[in-house]
Parts: sequence; C-alpha cells; structure tokens
Amino acid sequence: MEVGFLGLGIMGKAMSMNLLKNGFKVTVWNRTLSKCNELVEFGASIGETPAQVVKKCRLTIAMLSDPAAALSVVFDKDGVLEQIDSGKGYIDMSTVDPETSSKISQAITSKGGAFLEAPVSGSKQPAETGQLVILAAGDKGLYEESIPAFDVLGKKSFFLGQVGNGAKMKLVVNMIMGSMMNAFSEGLVLSERSGLNPHDLLDILDLGGIANPMFRGKGPAMLKSNHSPAFPLKHQQKDMRLALALGDENAVSMPVAAAANESFKKARSMGLGDLDFSAVHEILKMTKD
Amino acid sequence: MEVGFLGLGIMGKAMSMNLLKNGFKVTVWNRTLSKCNELVEFGASIGETPAQVVKKCRLTIAMLSDPAAALSVVFDKDGVLEQIDSGKGYIDMSTVDPETSSKISQAITSKGGAFLEAPVSGSKQPAETGQLVILAAGDKGLYEESIPAFDVLGKKSFFLGQVGNGAKMKLVVNMIMGSMMNAFSEGLVLSERSGLNPHDLLDILDLGGIANPMFRGKGPAMLKSNHSPAFPLKHQQKDMRLALALGDENAVSMPVAAAANESFKKARSMGLGDLDFSAVHEILKMTKD
Amino acid sequence: MEVGFLGLGIMGKAMSMNLLKNGFKVTVWNRTLSKCNELVEFGASIGETPAQVVKKCRLTIAMLSDPAAALSVVFDKDGVLEQIDSGKGYIDMSTVDPETSSKISQAITSKGGAFLEAPVSGSKQPAETGQLVILAAGDKGLYEESIPAFDVLGKKSFFLGQVGNGAKMKLVVNMIMGSMMNAFSEGLVLSERSGLNPHDLLDILDLGGIANPMFRGKGPAMLKSNHSPAFPLKHQQKDMRLALALGDENAVSMPVAAAANESFKKARSMGLGDLDFSAVHEILKMTKD
Amino acid sequence: MEVGFLGLGIMGKAMSMNLLKNGFKVTVWNRTLSKCNELVEFGASIGETPAQVVKKCRLTIAMLSDPAAALSVVFDKDGVLEQIDSGKGYIDMSTVDPETSSKISQAITSKGGAFLEAPVSGSKQPAETGQLVILAAGDKGLYEESIPAFDVLGKKSFFLGQVGNGAKMKLVVNMIMGSMMNAFSEGLVLSERSGLNPHDLLDILDLGGIANPMFRGKGPAMLKSNHSPAFPLKHQQKDMRLALALGDENAVSMPVAAAANESFKKARSMGLGDLDFSAVHEILKMTKD
Repeated sequence: MEVGFLGLGIMGKAMSMNLLKNGFKVTVWNRTLSKCNELVEFGASIGETPAQVVKKCRLTIAMLSDPAAALSVVFDKDGVLEQIDSGKGYIDMSTVDPETSSKISQAITSKGGAFLEAPVSGSKQPAETGQLVILAAGDKGLYEESIPAFDVLGKKSFFLGQVGNGAKMKLVVNMIMGSMMNAFSEGLVLSERSGLNPHDLLDILDLGGIANPMFRGKGPAMLKSNHSPAFPLKHQQKDMRLALALGDENAVSMPVAAAANESFKKARSMGLGDLDFSAVHEILKMTKD
Repeated sequence: MEVGFLGLGIMGKAMSMNLLKNGFKVTVWNRTLSKCNELVEFGASIGETPAQVVKKCRLTIAMLSDPAAALSVVFDKDGVLEQIDSGKGYIDMSTVDPETSSKISQAITSKGGAFLEAPVSGSKQPAETGQLVILAAGDKGLYEESIPAFDVLGKKSFFLGQVGNGAKMKLVVNMIMGSMMNAFSEGLVLSERSGLNPHDLLDILDLGGIANPMFRGKGPAMLKSNHSPAFPLKHQQKDMRLALALGDENAVSMPVAAAANESFKKARSMGLGDLDFSAVHEILKMTKD
Repeated sequence: MEVGFLGLGIMGKAMSMNLLKNGFKVTVWNRTLSKCNELVEFGASIGETPAQVVKKCRLTIAMLSDPAAALSVVFDKDGVLEQIDSGKGYIDMSTVDPETSSKISQAITSKGGAFLEAPVSGSKQPAETGQLVILAAGDKGLYEESIPAFDVLGKKSFFLGQVGNGAKMKLVVNMIMGSMMNAFSEGLVLSERSGLNPHDLLDILDLGGIANPMFRGKGPAMLKSNHSPAFPLKHQQKDMRLALALGDENAVSMPVAAAANESFKKARSMGLGDLDFSAVHEILKMTKD
Repeated sequence: MEVGFLGLGIMGKAMSMNLLKNGFKVTVWNRTLSKCNELVEFGASIGETPAQVVKKCRLTIAMLSDPAAALSVVFDKDGVLEQIDSGKGYIDMSTVDPETSSKISQAITSKGGAFLEAPVSGSKQPAETGQLVILAAGDKGLYEESIPAFDVLGKKSFFLGQVGNGAKMKLVVNMIMGSMMNAFSEGLVLSERSGLNPHDLLDILDLGGIANPMFRGKGPAMLKSNHSPAFPLKHQQKDMRLALALGDENAVSMPVAAAANESFKKARSMGLGDLDFSAVHEILKMTKD
C-alpha cells in the first residue's frame, strides 16, 4: 500500500517510520526538506511539495504542528488542494480545532476528494511504538480504506461520525485529563501541607481504584518540580478553553473543568505556559515561604 | 496468632473470615450477636462484649460503621477500655475522622495500651479477596506486630506516622477520587450533548493515559443511570468536606475540590445522597427536557 | 444640532425622543418604518434608508438590537457605508462584541468617516429619563462633537480610548454584575434554608456596606420567583462568556466569574435563558422537594 | 437607664461612649482596666470584674474580640455566671460562631437569666456614629427591653428569632460580601490587563445598578495596593468557611462562595491574612512580572 505523508516533526517522523517498517511505500514531505533524509534511508521517497505528494499517492496523511500549518499545506501554493480529486483521500491526523478541520474538509470535498480528520491520543512514545489511539471522523469509506495504516500507527482506531467529532472527542478527553491533573495536584499539596508524605500518597493511589498511568508517570517528577514538557500547559489550557466553549454552545455546565481552567490560566499568568501541564502544581503549592 | 475482631458488617465479616481461613484464631463480637454464627461455623469463638474480646486477645481489631460506633465499643460499659492494658494492642480499621481517632488513641494509651488506626482503601470485594490497602498510623511496634494480619487482609499496608495520618491520607485519596468523578461525569455529559457517543468516550479513555479502574467500572452503569451504592454520595461528600476543612487548617487552596464538593452538595439537595457517588452525574446532565 | 438616528426599539425610541425634546433636529430610520410615526409627531424627519439618513446628517447615531443588526445597517444595500465620508461621523451605541465593533470601525474609517462606539449602561428607564452611562471609544474628535447629544442621553459619558474599549468595559461591568447576582442568590438560598427570613436579609443588606440598587430592586421579586426579563439570562451568560474569553486572552484567572458562569449555563440548560438573569436563583434553590 | 458594658476595644469603647452621651448610666469593665479611664471622665462607673458589673446592672452588654474572650467573661472566675439571675439580662454583641453563642445562652438561661445575642454589622466608624445594624436573636422580652440602647447604638435593629440566628445572619451577609469582593477584584484585574483604566471602571460602577459603598470606599485604595485592615482577610475567610459549613449542613450548593473562599485561602497562604480582606486583589493580579 502506498501513502503520502506530510509533516515530519516528532510525531510525523515516528509515524512514517512505522509505516515504512511495516511494508508501506511512503512518499514524504516536510517544510524543511532535510528532515526527510533519515526516512529516505529507510526507503521513503520524497515529494517536493504537498501537491506532488498528493499527485503521486491515492492516500495522503498529514501530521502537522498546529492549525496554521494544517491550513497552509492545504491552501497555500503547491498545496494539497491543487492535486486532490475524486480518486484521492486526505487524512489529517494533526490536532486542530473543529473550525479548522471543517474548513479543510469543505475544501477537499468540494474538489471531489475524500476527507478524514483523525487526531490521535498519545504523544512521542506511543507514536514510535505504534500505540496511538486514533479518533477518526468524516468519510466512512476513506476510514475503512485507511484501516491497514491505522493498524500500524495505533493500537485502536475509532470512527466517530461527521467531521469535527474527532476534534471534539479529543477535547473531551483532554478536558477530563486537565481536571484530573488539578485534582491530583491539589491532593499532593494537601498531603504535604498536612504532614503526610506525598510519596506515600503516590504509592497508595497506585494501588487503588483511581490508579492511572498519568499519576504514576508524572507524580514523582512533579514532587521534584520537574515539569519538562510532554504536553505544554498552554496547549492544555487552550483545550480546556475550547472544551468549555463546546459546553457553552450546548448549555452544559461544567464547574470542575471551569475551576481547573482558571488554575491553568493562573499558571500561564505566572509564566509556566511552556512547561508541562503538570506545572499547575506549582501554582497550587505556592506559599509566601 | 490470636486476634479479636469487633464488628461484623459487610467489611468486618469478610475480613474476619479471611483471618480464619488463613489460620488465625479469631474471637468475634458484634452488636447483634447472631451475626457471629456464620463465623463460628468456620471456627471463630464468640466474645460476649468488646471488653471480653480484649480480655482474651492480645490484639483486637475493630471494623465499625461510623465514628459513633467506633467510640461506643471503646467508651461504653463493657467496652474496650475496661480491659485494655499495657500488654495489649487495639487496631481500629474503621473509617473515622481524625478527631474521633485521636480521642480513642488517648483513651487507649492512657490505660497503657498500644493503639493503631488503620483505615482501609477498598470496599466489599477487596475485603473478601484480601486486597485492601491499609493506611496505618500510631504505634509503630503494634504496626509491626500486626503485619501478619495485614498481609492476610490487604495487598499492601503503609505505616504513615502519628495517629490521625491514616484518616488524613484517606481523606486526601477520597478527595482526589471525588474530583475525578466530577471531571469524568462532566466529560460524559459534554460528549453526549455534543453529538458524540459516550460509549466511544469510555473506550477511548480506557486506552489512554488516564485509564483507571473507577472509570472502567462505573462508566457503563452511569450511562444507564444506575448508581447502586458502593460508596454513598453523602459519605463521599462528607469526605470532601473534611478534606477541604483539612486544607483550610493548612491554608491550602483547592478550587477544583471545592467546585466538586458543591456539585456533590447539589446532588444531596436533590435527594441523591444514598445513591453511589457516581450519581453526581445526574445533577450534571439535568436539563429541562 | 442635527443628528440621524437608526433603530427605534425600546431603547432607540426613548433616546431619540429625548433628543427631540431637547431641541435636536432628528432624522430617524427603523427597519419597520411605521415605528417612526410617533417620533414624527414630535417633530422628527424620516429617512427611507440608513444611507439617506447619513447623507442628510453630519452625525448619525445607531441603537440596534444585536451585532447582526449593527452590521446589517452598515454593510447592506442602502447602508451607512454608501454615504459615509470624511465630513461625517457614525456613533454606534448598540451593545456588540469587540470584533463586530472593530469591523464597523474599519469600514467607516476606510471611507474617511469618523467612528465612535458608545455602548450604554442602563436599560429602558434610564433611556427614557436621560440617565444612561455612555462608554465611548474611538475617534476622540467625534466624541467631543457628540457631547451635547450625550449630555441629553446620559448622566455621564466616558471616553475610553481605542475602538473596542467601550465594549470591553461593558463586559467587565456585566461580569461583576453577574457574579454579584450569584453571590446574592446563594445568600438568599442560604438564609432561607438555615431558618432565617430572607426578607430580613434584604433589609439588612440594604443598610450595610454592600447595599446597591440591584439587590434592592430585584430582591423582593426574586423571593416571589418573579424573573420578568429586564436583562435576559442568556445575554448575561453570553457577556460572562465573552468577559472570560477576554480574561483568557490576557491570562487573567477569574475563578468566581467562572463559577458564576457555570451556574448561568446550568440555568440556560434548565430552560431559563429568556427570563431575567436573576433566574439563576431558581437553579441555586432547586431541591428534590 | 442603667447598663453594664464589658469590653472596651475599638468597638466597645465607641459604643459605651455613645450610651453615656445619650444619658445612659454605664458601668464598664475591661480586662485591662486602665482602658476604662477615658469613659470614667465622661461619667462611667467601673466594675472590677464582669461579675460585679452584672451584680450592679439589670442589663449587661458585652462587646468582645473573639469567641475565646466571649466565653471567658462568662465562664471564668468572677465571670458573668456568678451573678446572673432571673432578674437580669445579658446581651452579647460580639461576633461569635453559633456554637459559642449557644453555649453562653445555655449557661445564662440555666441560671434564670435572659440572653440575647446581638452581633452587629458595621465597624469602627458606624460604632462611633451610632449607625450600626444590630442582628438580635434569643429572648424576645430582653430584645424589647434593650430597644432604647439599640436605638442609640445603631440605626436599625432586627429581632431574628432563636439564639444562633444573629450569628447565622451575619455569616450570610459576610459571605455575600466576600464573594462580591472577589467579583470586584477580578473585574479590576480584567480591566487593567485588557488595556482599560481601572479608575474609569470605578467611576462607571459607581454610576450604575451595582454601585455600593464597599466598591466606592475600598476601590481607590485597592488600586494602590493599600489594604490596611478594616476587616482582616483571615476573619473574612473564617466567615466564608463557616457560611459554607452552614450551607453544607443544609445541603445548599454555593459554587461562587466556594470559589471565593479558595481565593481567600490562597491569599492566607501567601501571608496576606492580617491585611484587609481586599488583599485578595493581590492574589488575583499576581503575575510573573
């Protein structure tokens, strides 16, 4: 099976490498073309522009850093739109807001192309090990055609209905995650200030009904004020904001998420936006001492 | 090893049975003595009063329903205090507030007895399978002497320092759990109202970094508005209140826990206090329709 | 002094009437032209279209119901843009979001016209009695030229700087007001449920340091569950949302406003959006009984 | 009319002076007796102990700094209890929690005395000018007998029913006040960070429907970070906590008060507890810069 792949950042590189290693023929493109070299060593071809990749491949996957980049590869000169047509499919796995996704979808489908948004849950390591969770929405036929690739990239893929639902589902998951991080941080601070050993708390949590990989993975580092960014706080806060906006549209009251969002905003105002979202812990434990 | 056991409710019965099955000699007492019969069939002896149990046993464990009961077996006529002395240890595994625990501790130690508070994390099923997590605090020597019994009753025990720390640790854990339940419920409601399938959300959560037994275990029932009580909402809310009070004492600001507590209070005001604490979901999804 | 006036709803009619009664020559327009008749009786002229009004008058004031209407009178056929030029000023007193205001401003100024946004604080009665508070921003010269009209329409006008600042200031005021309404409602419910007489509370509040016209004016009606809409809850909630969004842009954490907003959203979800924003009281006092 | 007066702090001194100036015969006592001298110059007699004051006077008023002091003058040696009897009334105007008030009430009435709790709204200046608001509860007959004194001390007195209701009413008022202070501070911060002039905001607020003495009185000082304590933040936070606890007892959900309380707690943790409660503003405006 032949696929195009646009975007070779941390995620995109790992993902296209997985495709190569599993027997896919892959044509790659990246804004800085030199980043393609490593993949060429493993058998990838290079497309000079997004348009060339689409021209060559029946299916093209994109994994870009933000909505601006996702729009740019589609709409700019030599972009996807110039070559997409009724025989081709375009799968955007970037994490973008529903509005961006919807713009891209309309442009692709108005040219006859099939479109699938497919944001993922999981970051660098799951990308490398093919353990992403894929939240696909849009063209059902394209989803089914993409399953062999999704099986390589992820441990599980979901088809969630109309375009926008992938982005929405990701917001819901991240909102829960953000509230949990606050709940966890509050508990760590409370334990410490009450004369308990927060390392005991970590051990006890990990043996009980709310044990989860995030507490296990981030807890010890948080106690050392180590917040090296796996998922930057400012992005987490943006997702909280977008999830709350989605709730506003649908008149859903979410007081815990709203409170969590305000703590993340406080963290941003204290200059912690580029650290991991666990840095909200610093805000919660702040005292005069 | 011989132990006394006071209180044969759901938890106490399962725990004393485990002790019996693992070769302990157990003398049991319960306010309604007939509840002892089943345990007698498995080899237990009966004590007519708490005092008689303590007289007979070097170590006595109590597992009672609430602070009032925990105080009563110690301080009432024919209570623990009448027989406790410097050769004996008393281990209260009930979940009580720090103040109650402290009263009992002072009374026991003023008679020369050794005291350990040892509330547990886990409910009926872990009690039956010996998979509780035991949060012990108080007399370190008594803790060490109790390890054989704790090894039977639980999968892990912790010694947390001075009396009160067991109760406090439990409050911290339950506070995090209560906030998480709210975060989870808000996410379920948001998914449903945004046109997503909340069952997909459950599946996706269970594949990611915040997957945990509580979401997995309670999620499907919550979507059917089934909240049969494993841990009643009014008890969860009481623990949130006590945790927030502990935070107040120590000037710890916990906005997410505070917001979660208010939603639990709303649930209480709507008559849901006797359902499982997952019933906060009903408050969050309430609309005019 | 001659002015044009676009929009004769409740507010616009009262305002243009005040101008007439104070010796201004006024040319009015309204989408439903028949609404102009009453003003004609008091000496107003009629303009057939917004463009005709602007053609005739050096200064034109608009008071429209929402952003869509505010955009429509400017940009549609026969709209303000067709006649605005460097000798004319356009003063939009409608309550619109900063983005709408900015669009109108750019269009007017690109044609050489002067633009002032001037949303007001106060509703029907202050409009009738010329007691509005006017929050002007944009062209300083136009502001100064408009002072004679503002002196008739309001008890005080402010010049707040660049376009957008009028809308922003109004959001800040309404945010404080919305949080206060929640604080007040929570207090009323607490008094009632604690066995106090909430009418005593109203009297006591009115004698103290937080006495204010809103508590005095709305309190007695709220206790009778009378929420006839002076400012509909859905509009108040929208302003909370926009104020929180403004805070998000500037990394301002506002946990009380966020909590208030969630209660307003709950009220919307319970079908109370068209009632007065005091109807959030119904949500807070809701019990199973 | 002859009255006893216990406690000559800032409030008590101003109040007993007012009684003297209005023709009451007053016997005063203070822990540091030298504080009585100034009042003696204006005609007061001195009682050597609380008991002596009560022995001499049919009615005794107390105005003490905190619950500990309020309990001490009643229960300690030479305290009120030693001389109270069925012909005498005791009026405690200190601000205490309902539990303290209830203890004092039971002690007084068990000796046959009549008891009235009568906390006040208003601080130093209203005490000096006789403009307090008096929240009385307990013995109705004693209330009626005290009206001449209350008319001198306050601009208005209320009889609120059973003992405890005065304290509860004061908590409700202070809770609303605390939430309002947060709403106000959030608005000030939002205005400043959004490029508005917060002094304009103060002026605009003061012209509208939520204008109130607290905003007017404290706003300008807050903008200069001047928080000299009229009502210390730690006391305001304590009242928020007690009001929330009252709500908890009665299953009243109060999300805005809960959020405000967490911000006050944060302020305490940052060492601002002894400043005026307006110092919560410092927390809200805190940034890295």
